[in-house]
Amino acid sequence: MSELVDTINGAIQFTIPAAHKMGIKAIEARRGYAAASVPLEGNGNHFGVMYAGVEFTVAEILGGLIAIASFDSAKYYPLVKKVDIEFTAAGRTDLRAEASLDEDELARVEAEAAEKGKADFTLDAVVLDEAGQTVAVTHGLYQLRAHGK
Amino acid sequence: MSELVDTINGAIQFTIPAAHKMGIKAIEARRGYAAASVPLEGNGNHFGVMYAGVEFTVAEILGGLIAIASFDSAKYYPLVKKVDIEFTAAGRTDLRAEASLDEDELARVEAEAAEKGKADFTLDAVVLDEAGQTVAVTHGLYQLRAHGK
Repeated sequence: MSELVDTINGAIQFTIPAAHKMGIKAIEARRGYAAASVPLEGNGNHFGVMYAGVEFTVAEILGGLIAIASFDSAKYYPLVKKVDIEFTAAGRTDLRAEASLDEDELARVEAEAAEKGKADFTLDAVVLDEAGQTVAVTHGLYQLRAHGK
Repeated sequence: MSELVDTINGAIQFTIPAAHKMGIKAIEARRGYAAASVPLEGNGNHFGVMYAGVEFTVAEILGGLIAIASFDSAKYYPLVKKVDIEFTAAGRTDLRAEASLDEDELARVEAEAAEKGKADFTLDAVVLDEAGQTVAVTHGLYQLRAHGK
């Protein structure tokens, strides 16, 4: 794992304890790409499959991870405005969520945030089981915002 | 609190431990109406406000609570298919989520489930802070399904 991923995982415990308690971990975070994982153990529901709120969290958190990995954290922080999630199959294993933003979109967000102090961006994430089957997909609306604005 | 609410809160610990760890509790559950609460303590994020995944969970869980309180649990169980959530204000206090279904909709779901073994229903929930301000709204698609189907 990269140093950034180590730093993020150290920070999750203190900044988002609810996600930490689920065992959610960043597994990759670089410009334009983020991935996170969550164990099944402790996160099952009454059907013996991953609880919906856990799948939401492992996907939602990518908006923060990708923003931290892609933009200047000294200037900007991310916040979430909306998330649509669809549960497409039962998650019966540990899960992995991933999302990406292409270079054109990163450049647009950076330019708009520099000009206006904030910039919205959408992020589509997928949550996969260990066999690579999609168990949930999310479409999120986030905002990159300048500190102090 | 009603005996049903006590029973539900006892069950959440074992059936949805991730929600239990957040401190989510049913506070009312009767035919056509459900409400749940979650404390801010332990659930804040890096802005000192309730983390998005916690607000999702306290709202999403109402689909299960209202189904258990409204329909015959011996015959049917609920599952969640989709949830759209919009975060409308920062949640800086303990939160309460509530949702209702009217009698016509309850009757439709019951009739359809009896005939087909399953019936979809939508549930709109609101998440409120202690001052009564809306901090999030959800629109969920659930399914009531007969056991063994």
